[in-house]
Amino acid sequence: MEDLPVVNSNELFDVIIIGGGPAGSSTALYTARAELKTLVIDKGITAGALGITNKIANYPGFMDEINGADLVQKMRDHARKFGAVYVSDRVQAVDLLNETKTIYANNATYSSKAVVIATGSMGRGRLFPGEEKYLGKGVSYCATCDGAFFKGKDVAVVGTSDEAVEEALFLTKFANQVHFIAPSELKAPRHLAEELLDHSKVVFHPKTTVREVFGSDKLEGLHIKDENDEVKLPIQGAFFYTQGSKPVTDFLMGQVPTAESGCIPVNSEYQTEVEGVYAVGDVICSHVRQVVVSAAEGAVAGIAIEKKLRGKARATPDWK
Amino acid sequence: MEDLPVVNSNELFDVIIIGGGPAGSSTALYTARAELKTLVIDKGITAGALGITNKIANYPGFMDEINGADLVQKMRDHARKFGAVYVSDRVQAVDLLNETKTIYANNATYSSKAVVIATGSMGRGRLFPGEEKYLGKGVSYCATCDGAFFKGKDVAVVGTSDEAVEEALFLTKFANQVHFIAPSELKAPRHLAEELLDHSKVVFHPKTTVREVFGSDKLEGLHIKDENDEVKLPIQGAFFYTQGSKPVTDFLMGQVPTAESGCIPVNSEYQTEVEGVYAVGDVICSHVRQVVVSAAEGAVAGIAIEKKLRGKARATPDWK
Repeated sequence: MEDLPVVNSNELFDVIIIGGGPAGSSTALYTARAELKTLVIDKGITAGALGITNKIANYPGFMDEINGADLVQKMRDHARKFGAVYVSDRVQAVDLLNETKTIYANNATYSSKAVVIATGSMGRGRLFPGEEKYLGKGVSYCATCDGAFFKGKDVAVVGTSDEAVEEALFLTKFANQVHFIAPSELKAPRHLAEELLDHSKVVFHPKTTVREVFGSDKLEGLHIKDENDEVKLPIQGAFFYTQGSKPVTDFLMGQVPTAESGCIPVNSEYQTEVEGVYAVGDVICSHVRQVVVSAAEGAVAGIAIEKKLRGKARATPDWK
Repeated sequence: MEDLPVVNSNELFDVIIIGGGPAGSSTALYTARAELKTLVIDKGITAGALGITNKIANYPGFMDEINGADLVQKMRDHARKFGAVYVSDRVQAVDLLNETKTIYANNATYSSKAVVIATGSMGRGRLFPGEEKYLGKGVSYCATCDGAFFKGKDVAVVGTSDEAVEEALFLTKFANQVHFIAPSELKAPRHLAEELLDHSKVVFHPKTTVREVFGSDKLEGLHIKDENDEVKLPIQGAFFYTQGSKPVTDFLMGQVPTAESGCIPVNSEYQTEVEGVYAVGDVICSHVRQVVVSAAEGAVAGIAIEKKLRGKARATPDWK
């Protein structure tokens, strides 16, 4: 258990970071190390995509496979070492349009000069029955991350997006057979779709839906249904790309502009269209979903925030 | 000592990476893990900026300060675990404009389908006398990285660029006094220059040059000279931003376009203007000089190369 502090609601933080995964914790490491008063509000280690990932093998420098939750914990401890404060709370509403930003959460109200949105994109509304049970035991949301664990195995990819097709093609390098389960028409561009359909390792299941994810200790298969038939498909790995991993932004109540797909557009310093509000990690547009990429975005945002607040601190007293 | 393999010159690699620092090794980790035949050509662990850095405290997840060379070694071992091959060699010339790329090095000639330039930007032509001796013992090229080690100490920054001024301002958070030594007129924008000159912790030394870097076991001071005087300035830290850290690109012989400042422009997948030639890390334009940022660029480039080569591999046999 983490030992979490009590935060005085009257305290004005320099930076509040919503979400304590790799993007948020890396931002916190950089702002705290630059001596900015930093608060991270988080729902818990396993609330995020990394926290529920079984094994991470591609965070450069961590050669031994590490459990996702353990890597998140290391990043948090690192940020806390430099003075970042973590609270376990759930944000309900925000007021980001003034110079002082206010965050309304279940246990308290917090305020700061800058806010960083690092809430990720786990927020799929409805899971398939059994999906959650086999998370990290065969069920994954990232073939680039976990594909290499399925050498010679039979796997399934569920989805219709570019990402789903790209990831299925990536899996053909490792898997014995890749079942591609498309609940509706493919949305991927034609050349990608053709590459998928032509691939000797791919079995395409058009207009097919998942009824259930089943197994014992580990995932053993998917119960699927097409127009004519209902079958149990035995597989060892299932990769879900349904609803395209919706970015978690509902709590922003429209105060920060989002693109049509729900992601948050940012500039090269990861500032959103709202002054003093930044976004990093899986919640932003044009993002490659890798732990090291999220961590790098946090570093760049942290450096930018330090520069911005330092300029402001000087501007105010100097003109008194 | 690393145990380095002999590479058969007739071998065609999928990817050759020039430079084995964090950017190159992260690229290698991603391409090797995607089962691409990957070769890294490197001049040695301490040939790069990270390899000569004394302590790294801000690579997210590595909470205990780590020696730069040790972190590079961990990243190399990680890439090698997935099959990347490292050779110790020095590139003399290249032929990048054909579909098969050729790299002419001291010990052999290598060829590949894709090339990644990850040579960094250490290449300052002339060092100050004594500078090299105190590297990691008081001399540094990155205040964002090392500033926190100088709490309460007196330090100097040498340079005229934006980066020099930004980094000096960053150091005011930690240092007792920051001597800014400007060999010529400041090139930083006016608001930054004013912020520097007005700062109570900053002592500005205009038209001043460094004659020598001196000390015993550790850095003890700079011997400096202005128009009227020559003095020994006692300091514990010296940060050099002279010549703005020139990107190492001479071996490219103009085959890859560079910006006026010498850096290599890349697109969002880190491809240069030359098809099949990528660049990552301190050698590229619009780059934030942090280990985690270089590692993230390598990851994104590695994923892009895998997609590109996979597409090609399919295109060729399918039209037979």
